[in-house]
Amino acid sequence: MSLPLWIAAWALLLHGCAAGRAPQAPSTRSDIRDCSAEPPYLPPTATNSTARLAVLRGILRTHGVHAYIVPSTDAHMSEYISERDARLGWLTGFTGSAGTAVVTRDKAALWTDSRYWTQAERELDCNWELQRTTSIESIATWILKEVPAEGNVSLDPFLFSIDTWNSYSRALRGSGRTLLPVETNLVDQAWGDQRPPPSSSEIYSLPAEFTGSRWQDKVAGIRQRMEQHARRPTAVLLSGLEETAWLFNLRGDDIPYNPVFYSYTLLTNTTISLFAEQSRLSQEARQSLRSGCPGPLCVELQDYGQVSAHLRRYAQGNVTVWLGTEYTTYGLYAIVPQEKLLEESYSPVMTAKAVKNAHEQEMLRAAHVRDAVAVIQYLLWLERTVPHGQVDEFSGAQRIDAFRWAQEHSRGPSFESISASGLNAALAHYSPSNGSSRTLSAREMYLFDTGGQYLDGTTDITRTVHWGEPTPLQKEAYTRVLMGNIDLSRLVFPSNTAGRTVESFARRALWDVGLNYGHGTGHGIGNFLSVHEWPVGFQSNNVPLEAGMFTSIEPGYYQDGDFGIRIEDVALVVEAQTEHQSGEKPFLTFEVVSLVPYDRNLIDLSLLSPEQIRYLNSYYERIRAHVGPELRRQQLEDEYVWLQESTEPFAVSSAGSAAAGSLALAALLSVLLSGLGA
Amino acid sequence: MSLPLWIAAWALLLHGCAAGRAPQAPSTRSDIRDCSAEPPYLPPTATNSTARLAVLRGILRTHGVHAYIVPSTDAHMSEYISERDARLGWLTGFTGSAGTAVVTRDKAALWTDSRYWTQAERELDCNWELQRTTSIESIATWILKEVPAEGNVSLDPFLFSIDTWNSYSRALRGSGRTLLPVETNLVDQAWGDQRPPPSSSEIYSLPAEFTGSRWQDKVAGIRQRMEQHARRPTAVLLSGLEETAWLFNLRGDDIPYNPVFYSYTLLTNTTISLFAEQSRLSQEARQSLRSGCPGPLCVELQDYGQVSAHLRRYAQGNVTVWLGTEYTTYGLYAIVPQEKLLEESYSPVMTAKAVKNAHEQEMLRAAHVRDAVAVIQYLLWLERTVPHGQVDEFSGAQRIDAFRWAQEHSRGPSFESISASGLNAALAHYSPSNGSSRTLSAREMYLFDTGGQYLDGTTDITRTVHWGEPTPLQKEAYTRVLMGNIDLSRLVFPSNTAGRTVESFARRALWDVGLNYGHGTGHGIGNFLSVHEWPVGFQSNNVPLEAGMFTSIEPGYYQDGDFGIRIEDVALVVEAQTEHQSGEKPFLTFEVVSLVPYDRNLIDLSLLSPEQIRYLNSYYERIRAHVGPELRRQQLEDEYVWLQESTEPFAVSSAGSAAAGSLALAALLSVLLSGLGA
Repeated sequence: MSLPLWIAAWALLLHGCAAGRAPQAPSTRSDIRDCSAEPPYLPPTATNSTARLAVLRGILRTHGVHAYIVPSTDAHMSEYISERDARLGWLTGFTGSAGTAVVTRDKAALWTDSRYWTQAERELDCNWELQRTTSIESIATWILKEVPAEGNVSLDPFLFSIDTWNSYSRALRGSGRTLLPVETNLVDQAWGDQRPPPSSSEIYSLPAEFTGSRWQDKVAGIRQRMEQHARRPTAVLLSGLEETAWLFNLRGDDIPYNPVFYSYTLLTNTTISLFAEQSRLSQEARQSLRSGCPGPLCVELQDYGQVSAHLRRYAQGNVTVWLGTEYTTYGLYAIVPQEKLLEESYSPVMTAKAVKNAHEQEMLRAAHVRDAVAVIQYLLWLERTVPHGQVDEFSGAQRIDAFRWAQEHSRGPSFESISASGLNAALAHYSPSNGSSRTLSAREMYLFDTGGQYLDGTTDITRTVHWGEPTPLQKEAYTRVLMGNIDLSRLVFPSNTAGRTVESFARRALWDVGLNYGHGTGHGIGNFLSVHEWPVGFQSNNVPLEAGMFTSIEPGYYQDGDFGIRIEDVALVVEAQTEHQSGEKPFLTFEVVSLVPYDRNLIDLSLLSPEQIRYLNSYYERIRAHVGPELRRQQLEDEYVWLQESTEPFAVSSAGSAAAGSLALAALLSVLLSGLGA
Repeated sequence: MSLPLWIAAWALLLHGCAAGRAPQAPSTRSDIRDCSAEPPYLPPTATNSTARLAVLRGILRTHGVHAYIVPSTDAHMSEYISERDARLGWLTGFTGSAGTAVVTRDKAALWTDSRYWTQAERELDCNWELQRTTSIESIATWILKEVPAEGNVSLDPFLFSIDTWNSYSRALRGSGRTLLPVETNLVDQAWGDQRPPPSSSEIYSLPAEFTGSRWQDKVAGIRQRMEQHARRPTAVLLSGLEETAWLFNLRGDDIPYNPVFYSYTLLTNTTISLFAEQSRLSQEARQSLRSGCPGPLCVELQDYGQVSAHLRRYAQGNVTVWLGTEYTTYGLYAIVPQEKLLEESYSPVMTAKAVKNAHEQEMLRAAHVRDAVAVIQYLLWLERTVPHGQVDEFSGAQRIDAFRWAQEHSRGPSFESISASGLNAALAHYSPSNGSSRTLSAREMYLFDTGGQYLDGTTDITRTVHWGEPTPLQKEAYTRVLMGNIDLSRLVFPSNTAGRTVESFARRALWDVGLNYGHGTGHGIGNFLSVHEWPVGFQSNNVPLEAGMFTSIEPGYYQDGDFGIRIEDVALVVEAQTEHQSGEKPFLTFEVVSLVPYDRNLIDLSLLSPEQIRYLNSYYERIRAHVGPELRRQQLEDEYVWLQESTEPFAVSSAGSAAAGSLALAALLSVLLSGLGA
């Protein structure tokens, strides 16, 4: 669900960096299209979109539409989408995760960010203009040029956020063009029976041992928040898929990597309506939901498609509907009259879910211990096999997935593994594909950003390693990224501090020498839910940090065409012990729950302060204490030895020249003094 | 102009800290009102508001109004207001700078933040409820309780920001009450001929040597920004007083401390309309403005009161009006149809003004050198006179004002001096008054936050001193505040970084031990303009930092009922020299232009890192280089000696125990070795 937001920060910054590039000269590469050639050249990876466009344009004419906007997300603003919702991909051939297409009666264009420009040139045919930006302003300007005055610009309001709708609306205002919501999706009409069917797999109850609390208690908690709110909302509308999954302790597999299912919930002060395909619910799940019937804890099951009609009826009463504007679609939002809406960035379910209770914290910690075992197995395996030149990015990614699958409670990867060697790692979100994958080598750095779904928790970790001789710049950059990770992880800060006001601590060591990275510094994470879980994190639309929240901390550095570094850990926000205390609430700090050592080969200890080294040593002690016994339990003796070696404490005296000199001098002095005494 | 925004941050945070306090028990103090006594007790400082309220209520009835909202600002959202605009003060008796009053047919209430609660209890009579919050939600809730359904809630739309209007509008929406703008100010009607007349003093041209560029060049620059904007605005509307003053290089004295005059400007692509009292313009100013007539650089002078009518006529055309939503009133804003508005937070005049050109930078630097002379004179004078017990907060403030007045180009203080001894300094914005002023003493800390207006620049500096034996907590807190000031001042950061993302560097040293401060970390400053100049600073509605901007850096610490610390410098954003460079633009850092040493008596050197000490020493070198010669030129020999003593370099080896040990050991070792060699 977080893609449009989380990715937006990457896109924005990456776009910023790339904006100054000169337009490309006609290409001589055979893997990308060349539409200026005669005849146009298309690589085999391109999709022929002519027939699809023709069908869609016929439909546009029927509806009196002059331009149709097609986004990349689904009706729940999901980060990952099902094949059935891959409308942009079907229409254009472009398979990147973020983009917007606009089709007019005679033109078609695709907007995407710099991560995907090359990919788009490989996948689009010459029906499509590629627009190297993602700004709505750019899309709107193009539309104003291509659509006649008095023309209709149309979109499916159930696929656009409130903000995006408003941006288009503002941009077209006063131009004579009308922004026309059409509730039937026109791409779906064109797609017809070729469109994949809806998922029919089971929606199941999470076993009690893996839930933080009973769904009835969660519902009671949300109703309490409703009562305590000054506006006294009568209902909460949930459209984020993990909202419903979390609230009812249900899971499904409609979306890759995220164990959720298509659903909406309307929770009122007296009733509960869950909109999902009833037949897909397991018997146990159905029993659980119906256990409070009749009564205020009875869940009425309704068809997924009924949500709009039901909400429309409900909104006719004397009601106030609370919803999260960051991820509710304009389509749903527009159903409720303005004065009956309680608009906040996030629903109370989102904010309740963000603060993990003691049991959820314990589960996430436990999942990270097993996850560390898998990552350590992978690191040792790489150390042994990379020198033989038999691992490539793709087989590496398969291997770590396999290590994770072997761990207890595993339910597979939590996102598409990033496994990137050498220059590929400079593309911050690179994922290898079978067949076009770089071989890992002791001469290059290797970055892997991977995570697992476990019944008790979701994990996400990035390590960057070098098995040979790193360059001075690689070592300096790695060390500074690590210093940033440490500086943010050990930061003590007041309760209720916004993440965006502290994320620069993860950058300062890089900034000091003129380096930086073009993406966000972290995101929340769920208990067997989304790997990018809003609203926790370090961006401007995240909520303030509170004890019990989990966030990733992931500074990086990317040297274009050369190498990439990222060091990512998941950390729990905990109360700090401070000498004094301003304010009524204890200060906070982080407890890092990812438990995998960093690459000693890449650390320049002389750059670290004594405080940073002491922090590192205490972190390594915790790794030993938590992961060591688990490695033994799993009889992974080699890994155990590897862990001991990799977590040897660093000498604090190595930090800085002054301190190092001090210890050396002291040693020398004691020799001299003993000599004098003799 | 910045009060509502700058102060809001204080208020919010202070309110946050104070929110948990228990309600006060009935008071036995004689300096505040006691409305529960029989008969109610009023101190002599209270104002009898009965007659004024009666007149106002009569007017409300005539207009069919059930509740009238009275703010503390003027039609330009000014931070300081003229007597003529002190409607809240006249109506209530309350003289604090921030508050909102609401008068219904039988009740009256005043909302203000924690800085002013005691003051309000001293100044209000028992007609007024005091509401200890400033949230619009609280005001709206009160109104909903007091105003009958179908009632009219009214206000003067020319005294409220767009945001505030929208907040009231949202809060009342669907409640049956109508938010009714009444363009005639009803308090003014009640005030009648007792209301002070408008200013009649001269509006004058700034001498050419004190301007950054000719006004014609500024106008051309703004018109260029209009042409380059995607929306192609045809006009810019200026309602901030310093916008018009800056654009035309004009100054006046309508507002205390800020050399501005009541005005609006409508700058179109072909015409320029300046709305101000024509008769008040000096002949020179008038000549300058008319020098380009007829033509696109001809300034048409129109009466101040004509702006609404003129804007209404202009908005009938095929036009787009660009305005800054952060400080334009709802009244003006509502004149222009929505589709003809280009709404941005700040006008291009505000953003152009924020980046000082080379000459403006030189002027601000020069003003700060002379200002440092005055502050150093004051510090030395305090050192000599405080031990005799003959200085109090008020006479101290008068003394530093006098030192400033004696400097070249001085035009008086840039804001009401904060001069606070002992526990008074814990009230972050305390100003002393004659008669109730604390005597300065070598047993207490003393904080003074003062600034000057000079023809070439505006200054603002805070120093905290102790002439005796500070407590360990005072010394630790002072040192940590200083460390925060240093850490932010020496920060290297990428171009285009938002201030809010780096301001925590000024807090970390305090956070480390659980301390913090409840106000913002800095604000922009002008060239002989506002001391709080938007949109530069470290808050969320500030624009990203760019080379050429000036901002204050002012961390603090306040121990309730005991002492207060703030260390404030003004700094220029400059390009940094870095080893590497990510991105296309050079990294940035700060050059501190306030040139007054800190109190050595309060610095615990063992807390500072070697980098912090090195920074401090290089800053002190710059103070000596710039202020030393000026002290000599002004024949201030004692001050010169004082400066040399106060800027003696600190031994870097004193930092931290390890480094100190290292040097000591080295010294000892060299003795031993020489002994061995002998």
